[in-house]
Amino acid sequence: MVLERVNYPSDLKNLSVSELELLAEEIRRLIIKTTEKTGGHLASSLGAVDFIVALHYVFETPKDKIVWDVGHQVYAHKLLTGRKERFSTLRSYQGLSGFPNRGESEYDAFTVGHSSTAISSALGLAAARDLNNEDYKVIAVVGDGSMTGGLAFEGLQNAGHLRKDILVILNDNEMFISHKVGAFAGYLAKLLTAGSFKRFENRIEKFFKRLHFWGSQILRVAKRFKVLLFPGMLFEELGFAYLGPVDGHDIRRLVEILSNVKKMNGPILLHLVTKKGKGHSPAEGEPTKYHGIAPVAPQPAVCSTGISYTQAFSDAIVRIARENKKAVAITAAMADGTGLVEFSKEFPERFFDVGIAEQHAVTFAAGLAAEGIQPVCAIYSTFLQRSFDQLIHDVALNNLPVIFAIDRAGLVGEDGATHQGAYDISYIRLIPNFIVCSPKNENELGDMLYSAFRWGKPVAIRYPRGSSGLAEVRKDFRYIDAGLSEVALKGNDVFILSIGNCFNEAMAAADILKKSDVSAGLVNMRFIKPLDEKTILDVVSKTDRIVTVEENTIIGGMGSAVNEFLISRKKSAKILNIALPDIFIEHGNQNELRKKFHLNADLISAKILEWLGQ
Amino acid sequence: MVLERVNYPSDLKNLSVSELELLAEEIRRLIIKTTEKTGGHLASSLGAVDFIVALHYVFETPKDKIVWDVGHQVYAHKLLTGRKERFSTLRSYQGLSGFPNRGESEYDAFTVGHSSTAISSALGLAAARDLNNEDYKVIAVVGDGSMTGGLAFEGLQNAGHLRKDILVILNDNEMFISHKVGAFAGYLAKLLTAGSFKRFENRIEKFFKRLHFWGSQILRVAKRFKVLLFPGMLFEELGFAYLGPVDGHDIRRLVEILSNVKKMNGPILLHLVTKKGKGHSPAEGEPTKYHGIAPVAPQPAVCSTGISYTQAFSDAIVRIARENKKAVAITAAMADGTGLVEFSKEFPERFFDVGIAEQHAVTFAAGLAAEGIQPVCAIYSTFLQRSFDQLIHDVALNNLPVIFAIDRAGLVGEDGATHQGAYDISYIRLIPNFIVCSPKNENELGDMLYSAFRWGKPVAIRYPRGSSGLAEVRKDFRYIDAGLSEVALKGNDVFILSIGNCFNEAMAAADILKKSDVSAGLVNMRFIKPLDEKTILDVVSKTDRIVTVEENTIIGGMGSAVNEFLISRKKSAKILNIALPDIFIEHGNQNELRKKFHLNADLISAKILEWLGQ
Repeated sequence: MVLERVNYPSDLKNLSVSELELLAEEIRRLIIKTTEKTGGHLASSLGAVDFIVALHYVFETPKDKIVWDVGHQVYAHKLLTGRKERFSTLRSYQGLSGFPNRGESEYDAFTVGHSSTAISSALGLAAARDLNNEDYKVIAVVGDGSMTGGLAFEGLQNAGHLRKDILVILNDNEMFISHKVGAFAGYLAKLLTAGSFKRFENRIEKFFKRLHFWGSQILRVAKRFKVLLFPGMLFEELGFAYLGPVDGHDIRRLVEILSNVKKMNGPILLHLVTKKGKGHSPAEGEPTKYHGIAPVAPQPAVCSTGISYTQAFSDAIVRIARENKKAVAITAAMADGTGLVEFSKEFPERFFDVGIAEQHAVTFAAGLAAEGIQPVCAIYSTFLQRSFDQLIHDVALNNLPVIFAIDRAGLVGEDGATHQGAYDISYIRLIPNFIVCSPKNENELGDMLYSAFRWGKPVAIRYPRGSSGLAEVRKDFRYIDAGLSEVALKGNDVFILSIGNCFNEAMAAADILKKSDVSAGLVNMRFIKPLDEKTILDVVSKTDRIVTVEENTIIGGMGSAVNEFLISRKKSAKILNIALPDIFIEHGNQNELRKKFHLNADLISAKILEWLGQ
Repeated sequence: MVLERVNYPSDLKNLSVSELELLAEEIRRLIIKTTEKTGGHLASSLGAVDFIVALHYVFETPKDKIVWDVGHQVYAHKLLTGRKERFSTLRSYQGLSGFPNRGESEYDAFTVGHSSTAISSALGLAAARDLNNEDYKVIAVVGDGSMTGGLAFEGLQNAGHLRKDILVILNDNEMFISHKVGAFAGYLAKLLTAGSFKRFENRIEKFFKRLHFWGSQILRVAKRFKVLLFPGMLFEELGFAYLGPVDGHDIRRLVEILSNVKKMNGPILLHLVTKKGKGHSPAEGEPTKYHGIAPVAPQPAVCSTGISYTQAFSDAIVRIARENKKAVAITAAMADGTGLVEFSKEFPERFFDVGIAEQHAVTFAAGLAAEGIQPVCAIYSTFLQRSFDQLIHDVALNNLPVIFAIDRAGLVGEDGATHQGAYDISYIRLIPNFIVCSPKNENELGDMLYSAFRWGKPVAIRYPRGSSGLAEVRKDFRYIDAGLSEVALKGNDVFILSIGNCFNEAMAAADILKKSDVSAGLVNMRFIKPLDEKTILDVVSKTDRIVTVEENTIIGGMGSAVNEFLISRKKSAKILNIALPDIFIEHGNQNELRKKFHLNADLISAKILEWLGQ
């Protein structure tokens, strides 16, 4: 085993290319074996193994800095940078993160998880290097999907302008090409077929040179406008030297090319072509399925047996769209994760996958809504952060009825700090005109979606990863008035106001409290905005003890909304806000995290008892 | 006067081209005359007059829809679409908005004010048109500066992919070229010089055709890869047909070209070259100065006589950078507005203007900070909304000491709803690791900036447009501990906790209260996060009446932070939160708006008296 001898990049330096190739194979097998147990981003990690080996062979990390875009492809990088022994703890609570993490290793130049950031942050590192008069290389590794994000374009542009030494590796696994998402994908596809053009170009050049005046004239113009002979024109126009496309699995060739690139200056874009799932035939065949995989024997999660919220959304939007011809759906490259695959099959004309471009997804939706179309934008809570200004400026200010289906709200689990949906209640609640709601279970999700089409306002419906435990969903939808809560339990000593999926745990908590002779009422608030003020006033007329429970940051969340309201009405109720703390929350399974943050029934009830006793 | 006969676009249809040219001149004169009184975006509006006349002559608005990017160039559009009589009320309270506004006219397809959104929203309109089986044209008018924003790129890409009929007019006034911001500007500059190339191209084509086999081979390849003969290659690669560059002031030619374009299908990019300030020699000479102008005889504003916060920031950052070689400054195309011109002159190597690319500005800053550089990112409150995810994911999660100098926080006045800085306290407070503060005056702004370089954390310093009234700033900086407030007045009946520039009004309010025998204490909170918990606890030990005052939305703001804290400590103080309401706030001068929202001394004190009396 070569891998036995390798713990750090320095251990690679004396290996032969054939040993590097063996090493890559061993790393692949270890990644497959490990992710069977831990789950994880298998396909992209397998596709990146070869060039990661070559990068660490050629460059001097951590002095040279590699910045990963998204970062879900870094497993081989982790194995080669001192984390081999801990690799089995991948994605588990207090184990290795599934993403690059500055706190975990000096080899991780940046903590990441979102898309399209690497060129910008790498350019920052490169500019800092030059200001500090230091000498090292900065490499940004970016997938083809990430290149569609506007931030990547902003970064490319500024890098081309500043002319810093920076190497951008475009890891083109053709996922976006095969999915035909965006004009940029079409452009990359052309580059891939340009090999023959490149050879032809040499012939043209020779030919021109024989043409004396006209030939040299043409070459001069070509050179001046950089339009004639370069397939990577788009990058060239933005100030980058373009190299490629190169087979990203040919380690020998990669070592050769990277060694040359290392000597070059200025902004360089190296276009690698890789295969997602490389070396693992099931993943090669179905890379989308193997993009993120669950453990073969998963740990028990709360209600892991029920239908998921995602599935319930998937069913509901299809059923609604059958009746409502104005209903369309928009995803930012997450048709699978957000549950829009069925919709896309049944209504291809009304389905828009805009690629990784959350900002555009939202503004585009606003445009659709301005002309009477009823768009549902399905975006994960953490990724919708990127559309914050578009939510305000394009949707809410224009007061357009766009519906946001916000999946992965609250604790997402193993993906960790970059992916927790911990902020959406706070950051959408503060926007005028928005209705913000969250269902207690999958039936209510369907009801809310159905009703949202009738509210005629911007609507955010947030729901978590996983299931509330419902075995199946009701077939009919029930209309809910915007702002109407549901009193689930009456009580005398304390009233719990819960939002969303916390309802189940709050209900169980009320049961536990009963055993301690505490009579706890429970309201399924349903809406963070508008608040059901009438019900809250009713509740405080019965008890002066109010507990709010939500899976969102404590800052500016539903608890805060209840505080603001009661204070504005001069109610002197005592309030306990239970929510996520004001910290970045690490990875770990949802149950472990809920336990840690007092969001399960046992700990909610214990916390209430303690509070009542004081 | 031709303009006398023109109220709506339909009135244009029978005019001759010479009359259109006269009309454009009359419109220019009226815009100059009006903005002398009202202030406004003069230079860009003058540059756009000619093509706006041509657009309304050729297209059938409001059936055909024009979507404006940023929208500050629309004065001529307003004059031609039924708003001539009200034009003198431009930018005044309850008068015409300075930007397109759906509520104002059916000719305004979208309410806007931020950059780079038009292609996305226009594409939404075009997709809706096709889904609705309707037939009209959609035109997005985008400045060259806006094209650098990532959202514009996302929009272009998706438009090129969807192949909808959409006309993007690139209004290239060469501002970004002259300022050499971004590689995209360089690209546009090349296009402008490509006129000669275009002529040359025809010669090449003829020449190639005479070359028989080789020539046709080359043309075939060129056609296949679209790389040879088209100056607008970058747009062509993204799926657009590129036309131009065309003189954007030649109405005759514009009418001709637009009439042809009207018959074309698919995504088209028409590249117009215009001159900012066209027809007004002072503005032509100094377009940056005349970008946004103040009225010649301004209405009195609060403390309009003092040094402005912007100027104080400008001085402070230069003084700090003289001592601290690691200090750098970043702007997103707003060096002037944010007060970084002096810095850019004295420290050109440490100054980065990234163009209109707020996301990149923030992630780039994070990269710099990761390597020990100390970046100050100066971005207006409303534009920083676009970097929300980057604040979370790139700065705060990596816990990097980037300092944000957030100008135009709170009420900005005449620019209105799209520009009010009403949300920043709420949307930054909810991010872990951030220090959020706001100075009571220009001296404290310097102190906070100076201190922020020592705090070693992400820091947001928010301050308003205008002045606190200080005639000049102190020359030395005084260090402030993060989270330390300042008790300004002791009191027995009520304590006012104010943040930022509200301090002056709160102080005056305390004075007024004294006349009603109410003894009001006053704390200049300085920090929203971390809160000065010790001082707040001290205050509630003295009085159970607390008033919070801030120029930020009531939702999730400083008041909310105080509520959350006191509730968490089981303090039963009565609290009055004074803040901006949860609505989009229209344009009007800052004083009028402060009066409307009870944020001046008279109304703060009146509100407190009323509250105490209840």
